[in-house]
Amino acid sequence: MRAMQLRGVLAPLPTPFDESGALDVKRLRTALPKWTASRVSGIVMLGTTGEAGLLSDAEAARVIEEARALVPRERTLIAGTARESTAHAVAAAKQAASLGADAVLVRTPCFFKGQMNGDAFERHYRAVADASPVPVLLYNFTAATGVNLQPDTVARLAEHPNIVGVKESGSDIAQIADLVAAAPAGFSVLAGSASTFHAALCAGVDGGILALAALIPDACVRLFDLVRSGQYEEGRALQRRMLPLARLISTGYGVPGLKAALALTGIDAGLPRAPLAQAPDAAVAALRSALHTFEDAFA
Amino acid sequence: MRAMQLRGVLAPLPTPFDESGALDVKRLRTALPKWTASRVSGIVMLGTTGEAGLLSDAEAARVIEEARALVPRERTLIAGTARESTAHAVAAAKQAASLGADAVLVRTPCFFKGQMNGDAFERHYRAVADASPVPVLLYNFTAATGVNLQPDTVARLAEHPNIVGVKESGSDIAQIADLVAAAPAGFSVLAGSASTFHAALCAGVDGGILALAALIPDACVRLFDLVRSGQYEEGRALQRRMLPLARLISTGYGVPGLKAALALTGIDAGLPRAPLAQAPDAAVAALRSALHTFEDAFA
Amino acid sequence: MRAMQLRGVLAPLPTPFDESGALDVKRLRTALPKWTASRVSGIVMLGTTGEAGLLSDAEAARVIEEARALVPRERTLIAGTARESTAHAVAAAKQAASLGADAVLVRTPCFFKGQMNGDAFERHYRAVADASPVPVLLYNFTAATGVNLQPDTVARLAEHPNIVGVKESGSDIAQIADLVAAAPAGFSVLAGSASTFHAALCAGVDGGILALAALIPDACVRLFDLVRSGQYEEGRALQRRMLPLARLISTGYGVPGLKAALALTGIDAGLPRAPLAQAPDAAVAALRSALHTFEDAFA
Amino acid sequence: MRAMQLRGVLAPLPTPFDESGALDVKRLRTALPKWTASRVSGIVMLGTTGEAGLLSDAEAARVIEEARALVPRERTLIAGTARESTAHAVAAAKQAASLGADAVLVRTPCFFKGQMNGDAFERHYRAVADASPVPVLLYNFTAATGVNLQPDTVARLAEHPNIVGVKESGSDIAQIADLVAAAPAGFSVLAGSASTFHAALCAGVDGGILALAALIPDACVRLFDLVRSGQYEEGRALQRRMLPLARLISTGYGVPGLKAALALTGIDAGLPRAPLAQAPDAAVAALRSALHTFEDAFA
Repeated sequence: MRAMQLRGVLAPLPTPFDESGALDVKRLRTALPKWTASRVSGIVMLGTTGEAGLLSDAEAARVIEEARALVPRERTLIAGTARESTAHAVAAAKQAASLGADAVLVRTPCFFKGQMNGDAFERHYRAVADASPVPVLLYNFTAATGVNLQPDTVARLAEHPNIVGVKESGSDIAQIADLVAAAPAGFSVLAGSASTFHAALCAGVDGGILALAALIPDACVRLFDLVRSGQYEEGRALQRRMLPLARLISTGYGVPGLKAALALTGIDAGLPRAPLAQAPDAAVAALRSALHTFEDAFA
Repeated sequence: MRAMQLRGVLAPLPTPFDESGALDVKRLRTALPKWTASRVSGIVMLGTTGEAGLLSDAEAARVIEEARALVPRERTLIAGTARESTAHAVAAAKQAASLGADAVLVRTPCFFKGQMNGDAFERHYRAVADASPVPVLLYNFTAATGVNLQPDTVARLAEHPNIVGVKESGSDIAQIADLVAAAPAGFSVLAGSASTFHAALCAGVDGGILALAALIPDACVRLFDLVRSGQYEEGRALQRRMLPLARLISTGYGVPGLKAALALTGIDAGLPRAPLAQAPDAAVAALRSALHTFEDAFA
Repeated sequence: MRAMQLRGVLAPLPTPFDESGALDVKRLRTALPKWTASRVSGIVMLGTTGEAGLLSDAEAARVIEEARALVPRERTLIAGTARESTAHAVAAAKQAASLGADAVLVRTPCFFKGQMNGDAFERHYRAVADASPVPVLLYNFTAATGVNLQPDTVARLAEHPNIVGVKESGSDIAQIADLVAAAPAGFSVLAGSASTFHAALCAGVDGGILALAALIPDACVRLFDLVRSGQYEEGRALQRRMLPLARLISTGYGVPGLKAALALTGIDAGLPRAPLAQAPDAAVAALRSALHTFEDAFA
Repeated sequence: MRAMQLRGVLAPLPTPFDESGALDVKRLRTALPKWTASRVSGIVMLGTTGEAGLLSDAEAARVIEEARALVPRERTLIAGTARESTAHAVAAAKQAASLGADAVLVRTPCFFKGQMNGDAFERHYRAVADASPVPVLLYNFTAATGVNLQPDTVARLAEHPNIVGVKESGSDIAQIADLVAAAPAGFSVLAGSASTFHAALCAGVDGGILALAALIPDACVRLFDLVRSGQYEEGRALQRRMLPLARLISTGYGVPGLKAALALTGIDAGLPRAPLAQAPDAAVAALRSALHTFEDAFA
C-alpha cells in the first residue's frame, strides 16, 4: 500500500522577497491564508514557482517551517527539495520532513545533461526515496532542465514504496498518456502545465500542480471537477478561457508575471529575487487585460 | 456558407510501387476497395503517406485518376497537391480538381525556412485557394517541414471561402486547442497524429487524417465515435491500445513500416520508392507483434 | 584518379524571374557575364541560391542550357540536380550532363527525415553517381533540410570514383574538420557558409560555394587566397568585414536579400518566385548600409 | 587599464571525491602538483569540470583554500563561483577572493530560461563585478545551460573595469568571431571547447579553458603556441590528433570520462559524485585506446 495518494489541484506558491531581496516572512504569513482558503487540495512550497533555486538551504528551511504553521494538517503540504547532488537532495528531503512537510517534490538533476540518463535518475531517486521520511514525488520539467525523465524510468521507480507519484510539466500529451498507462494502482500522475490541463485530464491524470492555481485556484479546481464528473465539453470551454492567463504565467512572464498578476488580485507575494526582475509594464497591462477577460467570462 | 465540411476519420493511403520502382497501378486498383469498404469518411491520396514528394506530376495525375474511378462519389476524395512554388501548387490543384478530387490538401512550402513566415503562407494559400476549383485544406506538419503554420495565420486564412479546414500533424495539444478556438463555424480542424488523436478529440477537433487509418481504419473511426458520443474513458482505453502501432507507423518506421504492416494484414500496397527502402526485419517483427497485441485486445 | 578536383571559390547564382513570376532568360543572359568576369573558379546554377526547388524540370533544363552557352569552358559549371526520389535525381543528373554541366551538386533528400539515415544516403548517392555521366558533388545543408550527412557516410561515399567532393553548408567546425580528415586524396571539401569561411579554410577545406560569392566574388576569392598563402591574420580581418553582409544574405533575408543586394550593385537578377517575396524596405536599407561599410573598408 | 589579462591555456581541474562521496582533500593535494608542473598558464577550480554544482558552499571554500596553497602565485588561480541567485553569486565571489582566488569564473544563471535575456545577464554580472574584490570572467555554456550570452551583451559588459574576459564554451565559430570582434583592447576571449580550439584560435581568441587541458595540458599549450607563432598547418594536424580524446571527454563521457582517463595516465582524481557515476567499462576501453593513439602520434 502506498503511503499517500495525491489527487486534484495543488497550488505551487511563490516565495515573497522584499525590496532588498531578503526573504519576506511577513508577506508570506499574510498571503498564505488566502490560498489555504481556496479549494486546492494541497500547497507546494519551493517548487519552480517558489524560486527554489534562488534560496539558501537555511531560507528554504524557514519557508517550510512558516508554511507548516499556516497550512492546516488536513491539507497536503509538499516541499520542493531538488538539488543537483544526490547527497544534498537526501539532506534536503530529511530536513523538509523534520519541518513538517507531508511529501517532497524532487526535480531531476540536470546540469550534467550528457550523463543524466535513466540509470542516473534511478540511482538518484532511489537514494532519496530510501532516505526520505516522507513520500517522494518525481518531477520532470524538460523545458527548464533540458533533460527528460522517461515514462519507462518512472515505471521502474514507481515500484519503490516511498515514491508516490510524478509531476510532469511537459505538454507532450503522448508522454503523459504513457505515464498514465504505466502507473501502478495508487501511483499519482500530476500535470504541471495549465495550458494543457484539460488534455492531461482527458488522458487520465490524477490532478495537477499548476502555477496558475496560485492565481485562480478555484477555477483550476473547477476544471478538474468538470472532467472528473464527465462534463468534458464544459471543461474544454473553461480551459479555453484559462489559456491566455496560463500562457502569460508560463512561457510569457514566468514567476515575475505571476507575482504581478497576484498583486493585481490583491495578493502581495513580494518581488522576485535577482537575477529575476519585476515584470515590465507591458506584462502588467497584458495580465490585467487577461484577468478582466477571464473574470468577465465568469460574471 | 462553406463549400465543404470535413468530419470523422479520413485515411491517407500509400502509393504502391513495384519491384522496379515504377508506379504500380494494378496493386492500387486491387487494394483501394479494401479501404473504401471500411467506415472512413474519406480517402486522401498523395499525402505524406502517399510518398507524394517522390512522384512526378504525371504520376500524381495518374494516381488521382485511378482513385477517382474507385472511390465512390459519396466518399470524399482528397488529393495532396503540395509544391514548393506557388504557381506549381496552383497548377497541381487545378489538375487534381479536373481529375475528380473533391478537395486538395496543401502542405506548407518549407524549403526556404527563413522566409516562410505568416505572410508568405498567406500569400501562398490565398493564391492557391483563389485559383483552385475545389476547396483547399491547409496542412501543417512541422516535424517533417521545420516550419510552423501558426493558429493566427490559420484564423486569417479561414476567412477565405475556399479554404475549408486545416490538417495539423503536430502533437502540441495547446496549438490544437488554439486552432479549435480560432476556427470559424464550419471550418474543420483535423488531427494528423494518431498517437494523440484522443487528446485532439477532447480538445475539440472535427476528426483526423491519420496514417494509422490506412492500417486499422475501423478502430480509428470507433475512437472518433466514442469521444463524439461522450464515452471518453472508453476512447482513452482504445487510444492506449492503438498507441504502440501508431508509434511504429509514425516516428518508428514511417511509410515503409506502414506498407510492411499492411502486407501483414493481407493488403499489398507495394514497395516504397527509393531512397526509401523496405522496412527491415526487426521492423516487421515489431509490427507483427504490435498487430497481434492490438487484435487480441479486440478479440 | 578522380575525374575532377574542385578548389577555390565557386559562386552559386540566383535564377532571375520576371514580374509575372516567369523564368527570365533575358536577365540571366545579361547578368551572367558579370559573374564570369570575376575571379571565381566556377559557377553553380540551380543550387539553393538558384531557388532550384521552385523550378520545373523544363525550366531547370533551360537554365543549364543558357548558362553553358555563357560560361566559358575553362570555368567549371555545376548544376544543382537534387530531387527527393532517387530515380528523379538520376534523371536530372543525366539531363544536366547532356546540357553541358561539368558536374552535378546533389543535395540530400530530406522529406522522410526518420528514414534518411546513412544507409539511405549511401543508396541514393551511389545510384546517382553510378548513372551520372559527370562527377557528383554531395551537398549537406542541415539548417534547410533537417537531416545531416555524417562525415563517416561521406568517407564511404568518397570511395566512389564518380563522387568528387562535398559541399557542407553547416557551421559546425568540428564536423568540417572531420570531413577534411576523412577525405581521401583528391576529394574536395567545400564550405557552404560565408560567415564561417575563414574558419573552414583554417580547418583545411579546399574552397567554398558561397552565396556571398554571387555578391562580392572577388572578396571571397581574396579571402581564399589569403589563407592559402598563409596570411591568416589578414584573412581573419577580411572575414570580419564580410560578416555583416554574409549574415544578411544567409540567416537574414536569404535569396530575396541577395537579389536586392545585387540590384544595389547594379546587377539585375530579377525577382524571387512566390512564395518568396521581394526583400522588404528594411532589408534593402540594411543591405545598402552593409554594402557601403564593406566597400569603404576596401577604399 | 584592465586588472588582468588572460592568455594561453588554463586547465579546469576535477574535484576528487572518495568512495563514500566525500570531498577528498588528500587526493587533491597529491594530484594538484602534477598539473602545476605542466605548462598551463593557469588553473580553474570549481568549473563545470570541477562538478561545482555538486558541492556545498563550505566544500567549495575548502577546495579554493587547498588549491591556493598549492598553486604558485605566478600561476593564475581562478575559482568558479556561479550561483543561480545574484546575491549568492556575489557572496561566492567575495569568499573566493578572500581565499586567494585571482579571479572568478561566473557562469550565466540559467534555470529561469524565459527570463534570462540580455538585461538579466547585465544586471547579474554588473552586480557581481561591482562587488567582487577580484576580476570577473563571464562564462557562457549554452549546451549545458540552455541560455545564450550574446556577443552584444558581452560587449556591453566588457566596459565594466572589473570584467576581464569571457569563456565561451560553444562551438559556433561565428559567435566566437563576433566576440573577438567586439572585445575591447585587453578583454580576453577564451574558448571552452577543445574540439574546436584550433578554429577558435584562428578566429582570434586569446586562449582557452579546456577540460582536455586537465588530461593533456602540454599538448593543448603546444596547439596554442603553434597557432600563435603562425604554424597553422601544424596546429591543424595537432588538433586532428586531439579530436578523439576531446570528444570522449566532452560530449562522450564528461567528467566521469575525464576522471577515468586521468586514472589511466596515473593521476588519481578520485570518483565522481552522485548522481554522476564512474565511467562504464566501455568508456575506459575507448579512452585507453584514444590515449594510446594520441601518444603514439607523439612518439
